[in-house]
Formats: sequence, structure tokens, C-alpha cells
Amino acid sequence: MKIAIAQMRVLSANCKENFETIKKNIEHAREQNACLIVFPEMSLPGYFNGDIWEQTSFLKDCEFYNKKISELSKGIDIIFGSIGIDWKKKNEDGRVRKYNAVFHAQNGKLKNNKKAKYPFWIKALMPNYKEFDDSRHFFDLRKLALERDCKEIDLYEPISVKLENKNIKVGVTICEDGWSQDYKFSPFYTFSHYYKHDFFVNLSCSPFEVRKQEKRQSVFYNECKKNNIPIFYVNCVGIQNVGKTIYGFDGSSSFYNPNGEIINLCGFFKEKLSIIDYDYEKKFINNNDQFKRLNSLSHAEEMQISIEYIIKKCLEEWNIKRVVIGASGGIDSALSAVLFSRVLGSENVYLVNMPSKFNSILTINAAQKLAQNLKCPFASIGIEESINQSLDQLQTLHFEAANEQPKITQLVFENIQARDRGGRILAAVAQSLGAVFSCNANKTELTVGYSTLYGDQAGFLCPLADLWKHDVYNLAYFYNTHVFKKEIIPKESIDVVPSAELSLEHNVMENKGDPIIYSYHDYLFRSWIEQWERKTPEDCLIAYVNGTLENLIGCEKDLVRKLFPTAKDFIKDLERWWINFTGMGVFKRMQAPPLVAITSRAYGFDMREQVGRVYFSQAYLALKNKLLA
Amino acid sequence: MKIAIAQMRVLSANCKENFETIKKNIEHAREQNACLIVFPEMSLPGYFNGDIWEQTSFLKDCEFYNKKISELSKGIDIIFGSIGIDWKKKNEDGRVRKYNAVFHAQNGKLKNNKKAKYPFWIKALMPNYKEFDDSRHFFDLRKLALERDCKEIDLYEPISVKLENKNIKVGVTICEDGWSQDYKFSPFYTFSHYYKHDFFVNLSCSPFEVRKQEKRQSVFYNECKKNNIPIFYVNCVGIQNVGKTIYGFDGSSSFYNPNGEIINLCGFFKEKLSIIDYDYEKKFINNNDQFKRLNSLSHAEEMQISIEYIIKKCLEEWNIKRVVIGASGGIDSALSAVLFSRVLGSENVYLVNMPSKFNSILTINAAQKLAQNLKCPFASIGIEESINQSLDQLQTLHFEAANEQPKITQLVFENIQARDRGGRILAAVAQSLGAVFSCNANKTELTVGYSTLYGDQAGFLCPLADLWKHDVYNLAYFYNTHVFKKEIIPKESIDVVPSAELSLEHNVMENKGDPIIYSYHDYLFRSWIEQWERKTPEDCLIAYVNGTLENLIGCEKDLVRKLFPTAKDFIKDLERWWINFTGMGVFKRMQAPPLVAITSRAYGFDMREQVGRVYFSQAYLALKNKLLA
Repeated sequence: MKIAIAQMRVLSANCKENFETIKKNIEHAREQNACLIVFPEMSLPGYFNGDIWEQTSFLKDCEFYNKKISELSKGIDIIFGSIGIDWKKKNEDGRVRKYNAVFHAQNGKLKNNKKAKYPFWIKALMPNYKEFDDSRHFFDLRKLALERDCKEIDLYEPISVKLENKNIKVGVTICEDGWSQDYKFSPFYTFSHYYKHDFFVNLSCSPFEVRKQEKRQSVFYNECKKNNIPIFYVNCVGIQNVGKTIYGFDGSSSFYNPNGEIINLCGFFKEKLSIIDYDYEKKFINNNDQFKRLNSLSHAEEMQISIEYIIKKCLEEWNIKRVVIGASGGIDSALSAVLFSRVLGSENVYLVNMPSKFNSILTINAAQKLAQNLKCPFASIGIEESINQSLDQLQTLHFEAANEQPKITQLVFENIQARDRGGRILAAVAQSLGAVFSCNANKTELTVGYSTLYGDQAGFLCPLADLWKHDVYNLAYFYNTHVFKKEIIPKESIDVVPSAELSLEHNVMENKGDPIIYSYHDYLFRSWIEQWERKTPEDCLIAYVNGTLENLIGCEKDLVRKLFPTAKDFIKDLERWWINFTGMGVFKRMQAPPLVAITSRAYGFDMREQVGRVYFSQAYLALKNKLLA
Repeated sequence: MKIAIAQMRVLSANCKENFETIKKNIEHAREQNACLIVFPEMSLPGYFNGDIWEQTSFLKDCEFYNKKISELSKGIDIIFGSIGIDWKKKNEDGRVRKYNAVFHAQNGKLKNNKKAKYPFWIKALMPNYKEFDDSRHFFDLRKLALERDCKEIDLYEPISVKLENKNIKVGVTICEDGWSQDYKFSPFYTFSHYYKHDFFVNLSCSPFEVRKQEKRQSVFYNECKKNNIPIFYVNCVGIQNVGKTIYGFDGSSSFYNPNGEIINLCGFFKEKLSIIDYDYEKKFINNNDQFKRLNSLSHAEEMQISIEYIIKKCLEEWNIKRVVIGASGGIDSALSAVLFSRVLGSENVYLVNMPSKFNSILTINAAQKLAQNLKCPFASIGIEESINQSLDQLQTLHFEAANEQPKITQLVFENIQARDRGGRILAAVAQSLGAVFSCNANKTELTVGYSTLYGDQAGFLCPLADLWKHDVYNLAYFYNTHVFKKEIIPKESIDVVPSAELSLEHNVMENKGDPIIYSYHDYLFRSWIEQWERKTPEDCLIAYVNGTLENLIGCEKDLVRKLFPTAKDFIKDLERWWINFTGMGVFKRMQAPPLVAITSRAYGFDMREQVGRVYFSQAYLALKNKLLA
């Protein structure tokens, strides 16, 4: 019995293109005599569609194409994810009723789910955490059960597929339905308890994050084992964004066998149609030797594959063919140049070095060497003259009828340089080349707003925005050592002290650089963001007192007391960065470019922040006062 | 029987300050012999707190202050909104269980809700539309009923308050509980059906929007009348932001009497503690003549009060005392200057005119006149020299090893001017004055990205971002006519054709200006955004064909055929702006500054958009093809 698993690329809110992909996959599956093809969740309309669900014309478009898909089901059963609409009922916001649904097409028609009295099956569990906001748009099976005064199981039946003259019962779940550990209702458990199934499908639209595949496997393996049901997990590939934050979808579609085997069917970040020879008696795949096990990837390898994939698809979807990068000679811009060169070809990545009197010959040379190593177009534009012009203008500026006149402080001077490079030069150079320019800020800098708005904070995309500084180094090392197998990113860029080079205080030749101690602050900041129960100064100060801070944040042992011998030192540093993180940092992030997400928590839509709210809890303040007394 | 209604200003995620405000209100109420005081929803922790709810230390902070409030209840009963935590249970995201709750403190202690077995009452209905995302953070009464296998009513009982030796039963609802028209469960109906109440309270944290008060009154009046229950509606004031979008809270706390009277208790956008002499037998307020009816405000007046209020509170909370404005002589920057002058005092609003050879003497004079009229500090900085320097640099720039060299197109030249003004001059001037600079983009421009990133799109705040161009004119007119009662905004700025003045094509002296026809596009764009079922080119083209487009979008009659005699003209214009709106416009909005929200739909968190997704439905394309065939 041949089943086709279509790990397709789904575009957000583009029924037309997605329909074409679906159609092609159906044709290929039919050619290979598959009798059933399964597509991912929301494979027709896309999933991260924002508020496009509010457009009646978009909903009608979905219905039009749903029907077109059903017409392709002659000789092959089709199971696909799309939006189910009930025009006569309302969502709780008063808009038309919409379900995140699975459709089954057979003999040219959509089949009815007789229990739900709809031509589709309904997602029961709605994730409302992380980047998901299903409840904003979709009515769910639990709410429908309440509305109809029945139980969820009363609205469910397996999908019936006639295969080799046998009636096969396919269990239906959608993405979150499998992640039920914190819900009262478990679809896999309940559905398999009430009905006998030959196998289950789980249609997903599940974004990638580093180490996600392990989590997924453990979750679905548990459901498979516990309920003694084989599961086909069908996920999409592609990218979809929730506004500022761009997620990749890694596919990793797999078959879970109750005996404990997990067979990867379609690979990692690959569009693929796999034809499975499934033995429903043995609950197993006959030709499984053709499917390679996914090797467990290293952290750096996962980062490399996912970031390159996401950038590549961004550039494709946004129709960008050329990128300009401000190459400072430092590690961030070097890694950025490597990433774009890999994706676009180095001839399309234009490097611009923009020295002032504060830039060392070391970094200037490193930038040039990078361009040579990568074979990128290169130019140098000095900024001394232009910043002097800006300084002159400010110095001679006089406001009529004013209490104050401009004062050029050190910070004003530094920011003028940064904005001259970003907002003036790079923006103009990029546009004059029909290109865009990248923002090379990393996650550490973004966290505390260590960047200048309209300066180095500007650009069309932040490819490194979800990498801590140590991730940047690790990935740079990985490229040189494992990808290029030679020194492409210059050793100087790796060895030089990280520095903005905006004043004599940043002189890298004297080993002066950023005020951030990355070996410590990377981990401190991460605990404020990525831990599921997020840490704050209160938790950190308590841990400092108890000597357990390294353990709490995951940095190297015995580091904290070395850096901060006294509580006073520790508190001063802690408050400085907390104020930056929750104050100016948020403000700058609001105006940051879109960013590539690869961790369990990237900035943007899944990190909902307030502008202008710096707060210390009373317990923190009490402990601080005690320590400083 | 004296009841105190505390229309307090609530700060987001700031228990410490909110506690101080609550404490002060309790003291004043006690001084005036009130026996009960009622505070708004989430008055202790704040409501739009983003993901701060994930910080354990913040939750502990809330509990600490909840207890401190309860200790103030000697001699006065306190009803207040805060977060209810069950440390032993989990939300569906696996984090600790949190409820949006109402607490009742009496004799120094929190009272138990014996039915729910918690020391608080639980919000039943969770809004997941607009700017709300309650389900992301809070478990609700409906889910708790499912978990405990009971009905919602089994988890509810009225609050018992001993007043004048009588046991008064107070019904408890929270905000959305009153807006139940699209939910299956109606708290007011069910609670009042099962229990006899003396009156209800509805604790709200309900953001302002133009014409919101009418909606609120109709909703609560209906509940009051239908269920024959008096309702005290208690809302907060202040501002709270959901990241980029800043909402004002107008208070408008009111008493609803079943006989049909609505008594405004605390005013519009005012912090106020009102002491009511309530006759629970007659279900009425004895001294109601002291409470003025809220006059129905004009649209312009609502805009004026709300925008000034929101700006004022932003500047206070962000500690900003001085603002720089690029004054072009046009209407947007003029209105912006007026708004900031009203809030900060004109001596703190620095106007900078930045002419190039394309700026007319008309607008240059208008900018100067505005500064004189308002008595703002003023300076002029010509940009000819600096843009020539940028052009020189670009023209002489040569990339080594490159296929392309920079080309200076008209658009490149225009954007260089805009960025010279915004990202170079204004940013430096503002910082050198210890100030910030404003972004004067209006909603029409923001919609189609008619602005330059790091140029006129830059700034710390967009005060006009929720005003269509015609609203800008109306509000400017309102200031001159009704507020100042003289010409403060120069007539020239009102009369001149709106123009960017970035080329000879924008020459205002020849009446050349923006490509946007505001009398039509304002309304077309609005239909894409603000209508509850959002319109798209499909709806607009159908309406064009049917001759009903003016009606659909609300612009003046017979305008469309005059502007676009043929379908081809109409389609060309429609597609141009739709592509800008859904393409570059989104991209620019992602990097726009925080914005002041005053309509039912502002950009930002309540307008969830995709970067890089331009789409036309198949029905649109089919109709277009038919018309153009």
C-alpha cells in the first residue's frame, strides 16, 4: 500500500502558489501509484498569515482552491490541511467562524465528517504561546463541543480510505493536538481509545528551532508508544514570518512505529515527496532502508543549515538579488558576509569598509582580506570628511529663541559616526546598486541596545539576531573548519577584541573594546529571555548570594566572583544591563529590521515587550539594600 | 451607603507604583467614610504587560503587594483587580497557572471565593482579538469548569460586603465578561439568573478608541436592562503599550441603572476618586447631580484630548522633556509641533527647517511663521552642501571586482535628501540637545510606505500615525478655530498642496505634490484596514463595477468615475497602492517608531502583517481579466 508524504514548501497567505505545489505533488504521487497523499497543516492557505484571515475575499479564495484540490482526488485519496469555514456561525470576535482543519478528498469530492457535520476535521488544541496565536483566528474542537453541548469525541470519526479493497481507518490530528501534555484533553489518547485506527496522521506546520527535533521526537514517540498507534508526522518546509520574526520550517516528517522506531521520511529543510510502501498489518514501512536516519546534527551545523535556508528563502520571496554589507573587519560583519555569499554567490555581496581615524589598520586589513578570501566586490569609503561636516554644522547651529543650544558630547560624536555609516552611506550605496544592506547586530547587542538607531541598527534583515556572541564565534569557526576547510573568515577578525571602534576608548590595538563581557553577559542575558520561567535581577542576585549563578545561567564555573568580587560590583553591572535591556533596548528593538529566528525564543512577536518600563521587584530591592547596608 | 470608585492611573508591570496609587485612594476613601472601594481590572500589576507574566519574580511581586493591599482593608472593603496565581497548577503552555482575577479584601484579609476555592474571582471570557491576548497568559473560568468537570456557575458566588449592618451581594465581572454577545456563555446573564445581587461591578482595563464610549454604553446598558441589575463600570486611565502601539485608557467609569440612566462618575481621561452615596433599595445614587453628564464629544475633540493625553503620558513615563521637529512648512509637521507644544510647553519644542533647492519660499516661510506663532525655538539647516557631498561620494565610488557600480537614479537622490534630514541632522540635533525627534508620518503615508526609512520615517514616536490625512486637516482646523481661536497653524500650511518637495516634480508653486489623492485614497486605504471584515482589491473592483465603491469605502459621492473613467485606470491605481500597502509598506512599518493609537485599528500589534506578501485573489484576477479583455 503506497502512501505519499508531501513535505512541501508552504508560502504564507498564497493559495495560488500553494495550490500549484499541491497539484504537482498529487500528479507525481499518482504517477508512482500512491493511493493516498498527505499534506501538512494549512498547506493551502499558509499558517502564519497574520490578520489576513479577516479578509472575506481571502477566505473565499481558500474555499475556491479547497474545491480545486478535491477535484484532483480521482484515483488517489488526498488528506490536506486548510481553513474550514462556517459562514453561518461566528467566532468569539464576531467575525465569520474559521477552523484550522484537515480535509479528505476522494473520488473528486470532499468527504464529510459525519460527526462534526462539516466537510473537515477540526484542530482541538490551540497553542497561544510562543509565536502562535491560533485562538485569535480559529474556533476549536473544544469550543465546538461546548457550543453543541457534547464531548470532543462526539465530533470525531476516523477518516475512511479505501486501499487495496480494504477499509483503512486513518486517525486525524493537527500539530498541537500531539503536544497535549499540559492540556486536559489529549486527542491521540481519546481518539484511539474510542476508535480502532490503522494509523494516525499528524499534519503540522511546526517551525524550526535549535534542538526542536529532539523535542518533537520525544513527544510523538510517547504518543505512539502509549496509545500503541503508528503515526505519520507530516510537516512543511519554507519560511513564514509573524511580522518582524522570520521562522524556518524544517520538515523532518517522520514515521513513528509503536515498536520504537522513528523513520525520517523527507529530511531536514528539504522539499520532498516520499512514497512509502506501508504494511498496515505489520504497522511498518517495507522499503524503509531507502530512508536515511537523520544524523544528530551538532549545534553549529543546525545553525548553519537553518540560517542559510531562512536567508535564502527570504531573498527569494522578497526578490532580492544583491546585498551590501558594512565590513568593519570584526567578526559579525564577516559572518554576515559569509552567509549572504553562500546564499547569493559572493559576486552579489558588496563589502564596504568605512574607516574613520579610530579604525585600526588591523581591522581595515581584515575587512579587505575577507573580501579577497570570499571574492566579494569591495570598496572603501572614509568618513572623516563627512563626520567633520556634521560636527561643523552642529557646532555652528544656533536656535533662535532657545534656552539651550546643541552640545556635542562623546556619545553624540560616536552616534554621528555610526549613522554616517549606516543611514547615510550604506543605505545610499545599496539603493544605487539595486541592492539592500544587512544589519549585522547579534543577539547580545540587540538585548542591551548596544547599537545606534539609523546606524548599525539599520538594514533590511538581521541574520545574526538570534545568535549570542559566542554562537557567532562558534559558527565562524565552524565555517572555516568544517565548511570551507580553510581560513575564509580572517583569523584577525576572530582574534581581535570585539569593538565598535568609535573612539580612542575602543582602540583594539590596546585591547580596548566593547563594555560587554561576552563569556558572562551572553549567559546572563540568555537567562532573562530564553528560560521558560524567565529570570530577572531578583533570581540572579539570590543566586549570586548563594554562589549558584553560574549554574543558573549556564556560564563557566567560578567566573562570577572573579569578575565581581563584591556584591556592589555585581549589582552595579547587573542593574546597568537590566536597565539597558528593559529600557533603551526595547526601544531600539521596536525599530530593528526583521530577524532570522532559530532559538526557542527570538526577539519580535514571541517576545512581547513594553516600551519604557524598567522595573525591579521589591524582593530584589530588599535584598540589594541588605547587601549594600 | 458610600461607595468609592477609583478611576486610577494604572502603569503597566509596575506593582510598586500602582500599589502606592491604590494605597492613596484607599486612604482618601476612608477619610470620606466610604465603606467600599472598587478599583479597575489588573489595577495592581497592569494589563498590557507583554511577556513579563513569565517572570516568576514578577508574579511573586504581585502576590506580595496583593497581600499589602488586603492589609489596608480595615474599616473599608476593597475590591480590586490583580493576577491570581495557583503555583500548583499549570497553564496550557506548561507555565504556572495565572488568572485574570478580582480580589476582595475585608478586615485586613483576602476573602475566599468558596465556590472556586480560591481567594479570588476569575475572568470568564478572554478576548483574543484586537490588541488583546488574554489566552496567552491567563487561564479562564470556562477552562477551569472543564478541568473540574462542572459548570461555570458552580465556580461563582457573589462577593458579600457588610454595609450598614446589611449583607450586600456584589456581582463580579471583569471587562470582556460584559462583552459577551459572541460567546456562548454570558456571565451577567448566568450569574444574575442564579443569584440575587444588590449590584454588579465590572472591573475594566479598556483602551480608548474614537467612538468607543458609545459602544461601551450600549453594551453595558443592554446587560443592565436585560438582567435588571445595576452595574458599576470601573475603568482605569493612563497609557499602556503592546510594544509598538500605545493605547490610552479613558476611564469613563459609569453607573448603569436598570431604569435606563447612565451616570458618568469620573470623567474622560481623568484620574479621579468618586464617592457615591448609593441607595441599594432604590438601586440609585442619591447625590448624582454632582456627576456631570459626559457631553457627546465631536470627532475632532476626541482626537485632540486623546492624542494630547497619550503623548503627555508617554513623555512623562519615558522621561522626555524636549522634542525636536523637522518643520517642513507642511501640515503634518505643523500639527505635530502644536501637539508637542501643548504637552511640553513650546519652549521645549525645537523646530528645524532643512531646505534644499527644491523647497519653496512658501513652505520655508510657513515653517518660520509656525515657530513664531507657537513661540518655539527655531533654526534652519540647509542640506544642499551635505547632499552634494553624498552624491560626490557615490559618483566616485568604485567597487573592486564588481559587476555593477552605483547608479544615482531619481529615487536614490530623493531618498538621500530625506535621510540627510532625518537620520543625519535631526538625530544629531536632538541628541545634542538632550532631546528626541518626532516622526510626523500620518496613517495614509504609513499605509503605503510613502516615506523614507531612516529619513522621514525615523523618530521616537509617531503622534499622527493613526490619523488619515483628512483627520490631520480636521484636527489642524479644530486647533486654530476652537482651541487657539486664531491662526497658529499658518494658513499656508493648510492651503499648500501636500508635497515631499524632493524634486522639481514636487514643486508646490506649480501645485505639484504627492501622488496620493487623499479625498479618495484615505477612504480606500481605510477600507483595507479598519473595516471589521477587511476589504481587498476583489471587493473594491466588484464595487467599482457595480458603482457602489463610494458607498463601500465612505468617500464622497460620484468621485470614483471622475478620477478613473476606465476600468484600466482604476485597476492600475488600485494595484499600485495595494502592492505598496502589502509590500514595501509592511517592510517600513516593521521599522517605524512606536505610535499613538486612537482608532479601532492602529498599526502595530493589532495589525498583524507579513513581510513580503503581495497577493491578489483568483476572483480578483478573473474579474480584472474580464474587464481588461
